[in-house]
Amino acid sequence: MPDRPDTPLLDQVHVPADLKRLSDAQLHQVANELRAETISAVSVTGGHLGAGLGVVELTVALHAVFDTPKDKLIWDVSHQSYPHKILTGRRDRIRTLRQQGGLSGFTKRSESPYDPFGAAHSSTSISAALGFAVARDLGGTAEGGLGDAIAVIGDGSMSAGMAFEAMNNAGHLKKRLIVILNDNEMSIAPPVGALSTYLTRLYAGEPFQEFKAAAKGAVSLLPEPFREGAKRAKEMLKGMAVGGTLFEELGFSYLGPIDGHDLDQLLPVLRTVKARATGPILIHVLTKKGKGYAPAERARDRGHATAKFDVVTGEQKKAPSNAPSYTSVFGKTLVDEAARDDRIVAVTAAMPDGTGLNLFAERYPSRCFDVGIAEQHGVTFSAGLAAGGLKPFCAMYSTFLQRGYDQVVHDVAIQRLPVRFAIDRAGLVGADGATHAGSFDVAFMANLPGMVVMAAADEAELMHMVATAAAHDEGPIAFRYPRGEGVGVDLPERGEVLQIGKGRMVRQGSRVAILSFGTRLQEVLQASEALTARGISPTVADARFAKPLDEDLILDLVRNHEALITIEEGAIGGFGSHVAQLLAEKGVFDTGLKFRSMVLPDTFIDQASPEAMYEVAGLNASDIETKVLEVLGVASIGEKRA
Amino acid sequence: MPDRPDTPLLDQVHVPADLKRLSDAQLHQVANELRAETISAVSVTGGHLGAGLGVVELTVALHAVFDTPKDKLIWDVSHQSYPHKILTGRRDRIRTLRQQGGLSGFTKRSESPYDPFGAAHSSTSISAALGFAVARDLGGTAEGGLGDAIAVIGDGSMSAGMAFEAMNNAGHLKKRLIVILNDNEMSIAPPVGALSTYLTRLYAGEPFQEFKAAAKGAVSLLPEPFREGAKRAKEMLKGMAVGGTLFEELGFSYLGPIDGHDLDQLLPVLRTVKARATGPILIHVLTKKGKGYAPAERARDRGHATAKFDVVTGEQKKAPSNAPSYTSVFGKTLVDEAARDDRIVAVTAAMPDGTGLNLFAERYPSRCFDVGIAEQHGVTFSAGLAAGGLKPFCAMYSTFLQRGYDQVVHDVAIQRLPVRFAIDRAGLVGADGATHAGSFDVAFMANLPGMVVMAAADEAELMHMVATAAAHDEGPIAFRYPRGEGVGVDLPERGEVLQIGKGRMVRQGSRVAILSFGTRLQEVLQASEALTARGISPTVADARFAKPLDEDLILDLVRNHEALITIEEGAIGGFGSHVAQLLAEKGVFDTGLKFRSMVLPDTFIDQASPEAMYEVAGLNASDIETKVLEVLGVASIGEKRA
Repeated sequence: MPDRPDTPLLDQVHVPADLKRLSDAQLHQVANELRAETISAVSVTGGHLGAGLGVVELTVALHAVFDTPKDKLIWDVSHQSYPHKILTGRRDRIRTLRQQGGLSGFTKRSESPYDPFGAAHSSTSISAALGFAVARDLGGTAEGGLGDAIAVIGDGSMSAGMAFEAMNNAGHLKKRLIVILNDNEMSIAPPVGALSTYLTRLYAGEPFQEFKAAAKGAVSLLPEPFREGAKRAKEMLKGMAVGGTLFEELGFSYLGPIDGHDLDQLLPVLRTVKARATGPILIHVLTKKGKGYAPAERARDRGHATAKFDVVTGEQKKAPSNAPSYTSVFGKTLVDEAARDDRIVAVTAAMPDGTGLNLFAERYPSRCFDVGIAEQHGVTFSAGLAAGGLKPFCAMYSTFLQRGYDQVVHDVAIQRLPVRFAIDRAGLVGADGATHAGSFDVAFMANLPGMVVMAAADEAELMHMVATAAAHDEGPIAFRYPRGEGVGVDLPERGEVLQIGKGRMVRQGSRVAILSFGTRLQEVLQASEALTARGISPTVADARFAKPLDEDLILDLVRNHEALITIEEGAIGGFGSHVAQLLAEKGVFDTGLKFRSMVLPDTFIDQASPEAMYEVAGLNASDIETKVLEVLGVASIGEKRA
Repeated sequence: MPDRPDTPLLDQVHVPADLKRLSDAQLHQVANELRAETISAVSVTGGHLGAGLGVVELTVALHAVFDTPKDKLIWDVSHQSYPHKILTGRRDRIRTLRQQGGLSGFTKRSESPYDPFGAAHSSTSISAALGFAVARDLGGTAEGGLGDAIAVIGDGSMSAGMAFEAMNNAGHLKKRLIVILNDNEMSIAPPVGALSTYLTRLYAGEPFQEFKAAAKGAVSLLPEPFREGAKRAKEMLKGMAVGGTLFEELGFSYLGPIDGHDLDQLLPVLRTVKARATGPILIHVLTKKGKGYAPAERARDRGHATAKFDVVTGEQKKAPSNAPSYTSVFGKTLVDEAARDDRIVAVTAAMPDGTGLNLFAERYPSRCFDVGIAEQHGVTFSAGLAAGGLKPFCAMYSTFLQRGYDQVVHDVAIQRLPVRFAIDRAGLVGADGATHAGSFDVAFMANLPGMVVMAAADEAELMHMVATAAAHDEGPIAFRYPRGEGVGVDLPERGEVLQIGKGRMVRQGSRVAILSFGTRLQEVLQASEALTARGISPTVADARFAKPLDEDLILDLVRNHEALITIEEGAIGGFGSHVAQLLAEKGVFDTGLKFRSMVLPDTFIDQASPEAMYEVAGLNASDIETKVLEVLGVASIGEKRA
């Protein structure tokens, strides 16, 4: 176990109320110890480091001034909440962060009364805080009572439409509400575009320390912004501070900017606000992501998310990878396709690295569009690109595509525009837990008329699907693939264009056919090996398409087997439901078919390794084996892994 | 047939290019004739009148100055596009608006090359226009070519987060792009809240004519804003014009405000912009909804949507209603429930009238929240209200709830917060067509862990479901109901709290059981009558719940019938799919069951009467009858209605 830092004062803080007994000078020391403890904890667990380090002082100040959990402190996205967790009774478990059975990497209502509203997706905090403020004024009740409502939101998150909608509404309602704009040097992604260059020039060379004296008019000293969302928000802030008006026009009082690492600024400002605020107020706080830990401050992403690391050197301890990640295979394949077809363009919503589009952006900067945290706009922008004759690949995580669902329906599907949806992080994703699971996209995409929906069974299949999507001009098409490494199959020189609506036979057997959609195929094959050893040799097919279904393949499987089992990495309503509908319509059930559809269970699954999460979900090889035995009426032998 | 107006000049305009041969004075006359023709047409068809009348001059000016269809003119929402349709080769069909087989009430790509991007939901136009602008600059191709991209967006639509996201991105990309902010006196709904009172006082008594002289600084003369969205946008505009900065900070050049009914202002401004614009530019145009037609100008909603009417008197010719609408039953029931429980609050996204919450707002103004066109915020705000111990009813149309889907998943379902979703306009909606169909909510709600999903079979059932939702504190719950009149059943004094997950037997028969979810129940009963006359007496049950399913009821039906048919007003993946999954898991299919699931077909259905749309969908009584005969192997007799 790594050495724990020496934290004599922090050791006396068991709940936030303990902070109120300390002097301001002691709070400085608590902050230093909290920073050391945060670094130490994340070095053991891995996780989001930079964001938490940027709000250490802010966390201490908020808990020292306000009365949590009566006052509702809501962290936007909440990957910056590790210091908050340490101060709110969870220090004893802080080295279980993001582990199975351990603390969540985000705030979570079921974890602590100090987490009044969970998060993980961005830009929800102001809406939630406004709900608490209204509930307070209407006599609502909540654990710990209902006092102030405080949202802490980053500049990137503030740039999303949802945050704007919430400000718009809050300014109208005029309830006492506190929004802290945590304006840090960057969000996740590195700089893109010409505006960044312009601002870099404008602000170059101004040391951060200057901000200690910064007042309302000193906004020209704002630090270099790095990414689209942050950049645009920064532009607004500039306008606001110079003119002093944007947030004020929206009905907020404005205070700032102040140095978010200086408790001597934070404490008096927060105390004043607590004592005097009447309506909505925005406090503009400048912080530095990764603050106080040199390896994070030096890193390109400011220590955004890290594996376990050595505290002294900052060196990350990543397991060696055996195969390329799906994300990188997508990115590279798209670059290759784009070399052959200059109509191919790409759209990401603030996730160039996460989606693998960083490769595309490097090679084809004028054809890659980071629209910021703006999935609604991103989808419709893609629809416009398609209507203009280009071939947009709209690359989003499954869970974030939920934000653009209406646009998928209304702007893409109804108009049959050939937008290509590259849906990353499909299925269960591991340490990020339930909030990031890509569980619903098969269902919500496949029931849209005219949509083609594919899932890759391995990384070579993903290459084929990128090629297929590039070639498909007749309407919208989507392909999904999981987080993490591929299975290590040989990769072709280039992807081949698949026939729309045709699956493939993988293994010819008898009695039972397993029809897989997506990367469970490996588990199916593993189960088939085990079953073969018992004398049952399943037929295995890869559906490739949830829509349109390969009716010939499915009906052929039905004719030649007594049982058909479908499996997918998604919730009910998706692939298996489409197969069931086909079988019902064709009258297959009339005369009997042992049909089962293995889908994600009807529960949100907490973080663990993806494999462990699929164990909980009952979708691993042993579960498939058990299901086959059960369907065929062969006694199961209780071999299911513990 | 009503008298047609005399339109000698308009008669010579067959395509927009014909306008270019006319003098400015003649364009004035064209505008007057176009207004008369619009009024005449809508008097015959019913539809959105006020919005179109507000943009008559703007429509003439845009088509006279720009080169459509090469220049891409994109109307936000596009219910204001009737004058545009008249000018763009569709005058001969303008009196088929919103009728089956006729012109859509919205822009539609498949209808005309002059409709480069269809709409119906709000706030998509800037995203789409930006897509066209980028495609143009990257060498894309489109029918008619690719020239300027012009978005015309109302002040209400501009207040939605999506529009903000698009402005944010457009300002960054710096492409030549034209946004026309059509700032009219109101959107759909009447005034709410204290700010409206304030602004009413501020602007009271200033006649609209003053705006002819309005320049940038004259914004204090802005007309009285009426609804939340518009109000907030107005606030911003005020800030912008006084400080001159908001849109400019976002990277746009700003021009305005100008009088949108004065061609002598519109034409030179648009010509200048066409000749000189380089980057993104916003033109602020002031218009008056319902302009030029006294009955519309006098109406509370400025003639927003109207039935057929008498042109001279403005009197609407509405068919007498036989039963209260589902919407009004919901509104009245919620008011009653709220009288007994002061924790009940209500949230609407700019649709107080459309959702029936106007009744609630009148009785309990402090407990009703119109958040503007902001479904994302509205859902999470509701989640915050629930976390604060209140009982929020979040009332949205099915099709608009798609805009808040991620928030339903991430903020409500994962946290198991007891938000009550009142889902209006479920199923096919009639004249508004495919864009407004509520087709997908059963699927996308019912696969969320912990969500309870109900559908009302009639208006008394709706009362029970409102009461059930009010009583259900254990987690989120949703209930859906259609547009239009109820079936005329007797209404109870108050709704009764239903047992969660329990359906009801409606009619005991034999051989075939029909399990209905929602208002198809009436069609099922009608089909049952017809079938009984043929000697087949179906059992009929009302599922009430798609989630949790009434397993006892379903398995009982299965045991006692040779066939089970489910029916719902929704796409595949919903109720029927959940039933199929249950039957598969229980091994019911192993030994054979004639199972069919009747759902919306895999196609978007164009506007018609709801009944005609359900005919296309194959979900009317005759279709059910046919399905039963087919399943039971009884020869169908070709009686299906033509």
